[in-house]
Amino acid sequence: MATITLYDLDVSGGRRPSPFCWRAKFALAHKRLAWNEVAVGFTEKDKIAFAQARTVPVMVDHGHGGRVVKDSWDIAEHLDETYTDGPALLGGERGKAFARFVAAWTNVTLHGALFPLLVADIHAAVHPADQAYFRESREKRLGTSLEEAQTAAREQRIPALRATVEPLRQQLRMQPFISGAAPAYPDYTVMGAFMWARTVCALPLLAGDDPLHDWIGRMLDLFDGMGRAHKAAG
Amino acid sequence: MATITLYDLDVSGGRRPSPFCWRAKFALAHKRLAWNEVAVGFTEKDKIAFAQARTVPVMVDHGHGGRVVKDSWDIAEHLDETYTDGPALLGGERGKAFARFVAAWTNVTLHGALFPLLVADIHAAVHPADQAYFRESREKRLGTSLEEAQTAAREQRIPALRATVEPLRQQLRMQPFISGAAPAYPDYTVMGAFMWARTVCALPLLAGDDPLHDWIGRMLDLFDGMGRAHKAAG
Repeated sequence: MATITLYDLDVSGGRRPSPFCWRAKFALAHKRLAWNEVAVGFTEKDKIAFAQARTVPVMVDHGHGGRVVKDSWDIAEHLDETYTDGPALLGGERGKAFARFVAAWTNVTLHGALFPLLVADIHAAVHPADQAYFRESREKRLGTSLEEAQTAAREQRIPALRATVEPLRQQLRMQPFISGAAPAYPDYTVMGAFMWARTVCALPLLAGDDPLHDWIGRMLDLFDGMGRAHKAAG
Repeated sequence: MATITLYDLDVSGGRRPSPFCWRAKFALAHKRLAWNEVAVGFTEKDKIAFAQARTVPVMVDHGHGGRVVKDSWDIAEHLDETYTDGPALLGGERGKAFARFVAAWTNVTLHGALFPLLVADIHAAVHPADQAYFRESREKRLGTSLEEAQTAAREQRIPALRATVEPLRQQLRMQPFISGAAPAYPDYTVMGAFMWARTVCALPLLAGDDPLHDWIGRMLDLFDGMGRAHKAAG
């Protein structure tokens, strides 16, 4: 019986692209918790207004007084503090610092490298009712049209993306998961970015023989293939 | 009484530029150990031949059977295993994974952003006897002259360096050190890169108001100002 509700970004075809929502879903699955999802389109801010939130994920933990937690990081902290069975998502102070650094690197560097490569595909994926909002807000950020930004990025910036993820390759030469012998929140944080790409973009962004595919495969297999079962683009 | 010898890269004026040797020195100081240093020029491979090493740092732990440890990472592991008083450099499995990821990011991304900005300055700093070796090996890697590489980098790549370190800024908004409330090996790893720059390059690479200066200042203050006491360029 699910006692947790997760508000998750929704686009056409039932796809769920948000990298931050994927962090929350992997974190819930890591804790062996069940949850039900409420699909939220880009412009359906009314659905999460009860939480004074403007972005998803938002979580309601009905088993703990209906506690409302917004922001993927706060969800991970809440889950570690509230559900103490099994391995921690974040761990102690050093583990939290690790997860925080990986989140900062992912948010700034990895998402920054991916965003222009995906942006027209994301626009094509969002619900028709959300497209004008998405285009206007993102073109303001990019300073050009979504299509021009994506075309230019795919011509010029794929080598930069592949260089950006080299620290991951080095890490995964030493251990099967970013976090060590088993996956934890740093893995879920990075995998959120790859789920984002996988959900909207049919173009392979990594080379076919990139050793990162081994780790991605392990991440897609986790929790009865939760990530793999989700509809990919293409 | 120092029972540890550290073989450390030496350039002119007694400056010690190696980022990997700085990791080892911060690690030794973290463990409150005393050591004596043997200065090794770029081409003085004979001094470390006893260790079957081609690069420094090399450490000899006379108090532990004269154990020879080469490579900064192995030195950190040796120190944590052998000197168990006080806070760990690396910590448990999650801590090691953290330190490994920060090391991979530093080696690939941060050093990669710094190297072309420093390379002619490093050449100018190394002992005259080492300059031909340094120039030949590094120009091969760069595919151009050291001076052209550095001039082009300083015209074009300082903004990229400043963007590269944004994950550090985000991390340090949440806590005083990369590792948490106190410094540990992830801090020493990143600080090694800043010591490298500080030792050879008089040009300020970060903006004067970059919030990273606060953390750099804290790192320079550690261990009775060990880093600050070391001669900077310029």
